[in-house]
Amino acid sequence: MANYVYIATSLDGFIATPDGGVDWLDEIPNPEQSDFGYGEFISHIDAIVMGRNSFEKVLTFGDWPYSKPVFVLSNALKTVPENLVDTVEIVSSTDIKTLVHQLNKQGYQNLYIDGGRTIQSFLAEDMIDELIITRVPILLGQGIPLFGTLSNSLQFQHEKTELFNNLLVKSAYRRLRE
Amino acid sequence: MANYVYIATSLDGFIATPDGGVDWLDEIPNPEQSDFGYGEFISHIDAIVMGRNSFEKVLTFGDWPYSKPVFVLSNALKTVPENLVDTVEIVSSTDIKTLVHQLNKQGYQNLYIDGGRTIQSFLAEDMIDELIITRVPILLGQGIPLFGTLSNSLQFQHEKTELFNNLLVKSAYRRLRE
Repeated sequence: MANYVYIATSLDGFIATPDGGVDWLDEIPNPEQSDFGYGEFISHIDAIVMGRNSFEKVLTFGDWPYSKPVFVLSNALKTVPENLVDTVEIVSSTDIKTLVHQLNKQGYQNLYIDGGRTIQSFLAEDMIDELIITRVPILLGQGIPLFGTLSNSLQFQHEKTELFNNLLVKSAYRRLRE
Repeated sequence: MANYVYIATSLDGFIATPDGGVDWLDEIPNPEQSDFGYGEFISHIDAIVMGRNSFEKVLTFGDWPYSKPVFVLSNALKTVPENLVDTVEIVSSTDIKTLVHQLNKQGYQNLYIDGGRTIQSFLAEDMIDELIITRVPILLGQGIPLFGTLSNSLQFQHEKTELFNNLLVKSAYRRLRE
């Protein structure tokens, strides 16, 4: 049972340009069409939790990319597109610990937490167990940051670092709780 | 001839706590007293360029740690401690490109650029050729950031990633100029 972050960032810690753009990710050379380990990761995930911004961004991609149930944190959203009613659920007005508890009780043990603000909210509550960060060799200089302010520092333990295409450095870290 | 950044940061990109503290670096377990490659790096460096904040921080360490000439960027500082007059020089009111040009002309070809604001100023002028970043597995949550705002993104090329003590991930990147 664990909550995972699995995300790509620029060297300066941005997950998107100021307007939410991720073209700089699409421009990464990938001659062998590698998924950089994403398939293996998602196979261990029971459900995905994301914020409204990420959800609306994913909708613009056209094809729905997720094979697992998605819970969207939003007080503003009331409905989801008709083709997604079986796979997407909107969750409103719930604090994070309660939400995770409820999802775990429903059998969703391993949660993939996605989107900048959602990740930041989970980290602020120390509710992330595993951070898997892929560093893209670019300084964006501005954008949507992966990390936010924390009132206390959080120690992690290095688990694994992999290099893809001599380009992407993916490191996995596990939260070290005392 | 190149300008290098060689620095440790938290996973969230801070090089020091808000008060400039680096105790979290001293707490890194290092049973074999490794220098994590620093000696090899500094052997290729001709001079170090840093700001006043970094200089004053280093002075508090007691022993002077640098074996190479140090240039301190400051308009406020006028003198250096007597024991350092042969190795430390204060540089005032110079723009970065002029400074680098002058140092290169004096025979200082490979420069180690240190300190948050100094690194940010060099990056803002696209005057960093090599970024060597060691990621420490901690989220500090707040502090002095390594990177600042840039008006344009900067592409880098991955050169090498090393793992030390299953703890520190050190990646070297070279600026990719078109």
